[in-house]
Amino acid sequence: MSLDSARALVAADLAAVETKMAQAVGKSDYAPLADALQGLVRSGGKRVRPTLTLLAGRFYPPTQHHHLISLAAAIESLHTATLVHDDVVDGALLRRGKSTLNALWMPSSTIMAGDFFFARAAGLVAETEHPRVIRLFAQALQIIVDGELRQAFSMRDWSQPKGSYYERIYGKTAALLELATQSPSVLGEAPPEHEQALRRFGHHLGMAFQIIDDILDFVADAQTLGKPAGSDLRAGIITLPVYYYIQQPARRDAMVSLIDGHRTGDEVVDEVVRLIRESDAIPQAHAEARSFSEKAIAELMALPSAPQRDALADVARYVVEREF
Amino acid sequence: MSLDSARALVAADLAAVETKMAQAVGKSDYAPLADALQGLVRSGGKRVRPTLTLLAGRFYPPTQHHHLISLAAAIESLHTATLVHDDVVDGALLRRGKSTLNALWMPSSTIMAGDFFFARAAGLVAETEHPRVIRLFAQALQIIVDGELRQAFSMRDWSQPKGSYYERIYGKTAALLELATQSPSVLGEAPPEHEQALRRFGHHLGMAFQIIDDILDFVADAQTLGKPAGSDLRAGIITLPVYYYIQQPARRDAMVSLIDGHRTGDEVVDEVVRLIRESDAIPQAHAEARSFSEKAIAELMALPSAPQRDALADVARYVVEREF
Repeated sequence: MSLDSARALVAADLAAVETKMAQAVGKSDYAPLADALQGLVRSGGKRVRPTLTLLAGRFYPPTQHHHLISLAAAIESLHTATLVHDDVVDGALLRRGKSTLNALWMPSSTIMAGDFFFARAAGLVAETEHPRVIRLFAQALQIIVDGELRQAFSMRDWSQPKGSYYERIYGKTAALLELATQSPSVLGEAPPEHEQALRRFGHHLGMAFQIIDDILDFVADAQTLGKPAGSDLRAGIITLPVYYYIQQPARRDAMVSLIDGHRTGDEVVDEVVRLIRESDAIPQAHAEARSFSEKAIAELMALPSAPQRDALADVARYVVEREF
Repeated sequence: MSLDSARALVAADLAAVETKMAQAVGKSDYAPLADALQGLVRSGGKRVRPTLTLLAGRFYPPTQHHHLISLAAAIESLHTATLVHDDVVDGALLRRGKSTLNALWMPSSTIMAGDFFFARAAGLVAETEHPRVIRLFAQALQIIVDGELRQAFSMRDWSQPKGSYYERIYGKTAALLELATQSPSVLGEAPPEHEQALRRFGHHLGMAFQIIDDILDFVADAQTLGKPAGSDLRAGIITLPVYYYIQQPARRDAMVSLIDGHRTGDEVVDEVVRLIRESDAIPQAHAEARSFSEKAIAELMALPSAPQRDALADVARYVVEREF
């Protein structure tokens, strides 16, 4: 299972989204800056979000097709903006095996580059000229930023309930995937029950996606990850594998004293990462991701049978099967 | 001349804007964070931008008055967001004599706080549900961010033309003031010639406003400024007084060798600040600010005679007469 078949279905539109994003960035006057920003656009990962938007947009095509392209480009630009700022917030030096802007630039430049993509995202979504789509976009942005703050305020809180983790990954990932699948149906004036089915599909998919990311942070090797394993734990962020691991009080006490105690070197975290990786916490978290993926696929049954429906189901399967 | 009479004319609406902004911020779950963000809202300076929006909105009141309140709150929130991020970019520790977030928080928190206000601004402007207003808002945001990047890339470029300074202060200040006076007339469906007169009024006012700010950075004392004099020059930013000062080649050579040379201590900059302050560069820059203010007032003549027209003219006079 890969994203290839889903992407193939909307290949021409994906190319239009790439062009749109490159154009939006190309407007900067300064060559070294334009190069850096174009590099950020091009390095753009798997394009999961625009693929989802373009597929979801096939059920009820908007009157003006270019509005859908602008919307997909807006959502991906917002994703880029949050990645750039996250790298400053996390102090991350590597992402997908490449140096982040944060490692190469001053923090101030990275802030400006993130703001640049926020501004472009705002400009692109405004091109849809659809008030409700714009409101949903602004709401998602607020949820994402609130989630980032929530994460900052819940670091190393070992007794937080599972609901806190859910809230955080909703802000971190699911809110934007929800927007990616709901907003094109709003643009196309889909009936409310289909709009809501697509919204819930995106939500469940986003939850599955982030849980798998959080698992891979423990089980994938550093080369595949493009960064050291256990980086969230090193930063004090409690993800689902950690949550399950510390449900046994003895484990929790041992881990907390290791991490919060005086022995905070890399080797200590390496040892904790190994313990979690080999524990039952990983299959428990994986079962939960699969459950979200299945719920996502079930939502699709409310929608008309169509190639894009099969492709969306493929994406939901891919998300829990992927190894990077 | 003060802003009091202009503010008095829209006092009830300004209070509604304050409430709107406080509500938008109050949505954060974490008490220490909510306190900090509310503090940022409350510390909010002279409220020049919402005052302008509310006055300009009186010529052609929108069908839904609350859209005007949302728009004014959106513009002021965007202003707050850019101030917060600017303080990280500039490494500023003091603003209006108070510690900046940057001085109190980690840079990461400051980035998130700025993003928080960006998100709130996007949510507030989306409440207007007016596609063209939203597009103007997004355009202004792009110009502001581009201006910030432009400034970063033109540091210590002593041979830049005067046009570069104009472009930068347009992005830094005039683009948002232009939005503040144009967008309410778009919301109220004003005839194009009145919309454009209000836009140009905001533009010229913004240029005058920033030139005066740049003059005050040299002539006001540190206590009035709430930060050390010459702070832009210390950061390598060339403003209009500097531009005029270095038009004499001998002065330029002396200054460049002082600032770019090895003697870069505070005392060296103090000396340059004193030289500029006592030179003809200050009255030259001041004449230019007055000229922009007069052009702004002239634009108002295209608009119907009304109390808000007189109040806007008062703001344009205040902007060049103010001493802080």
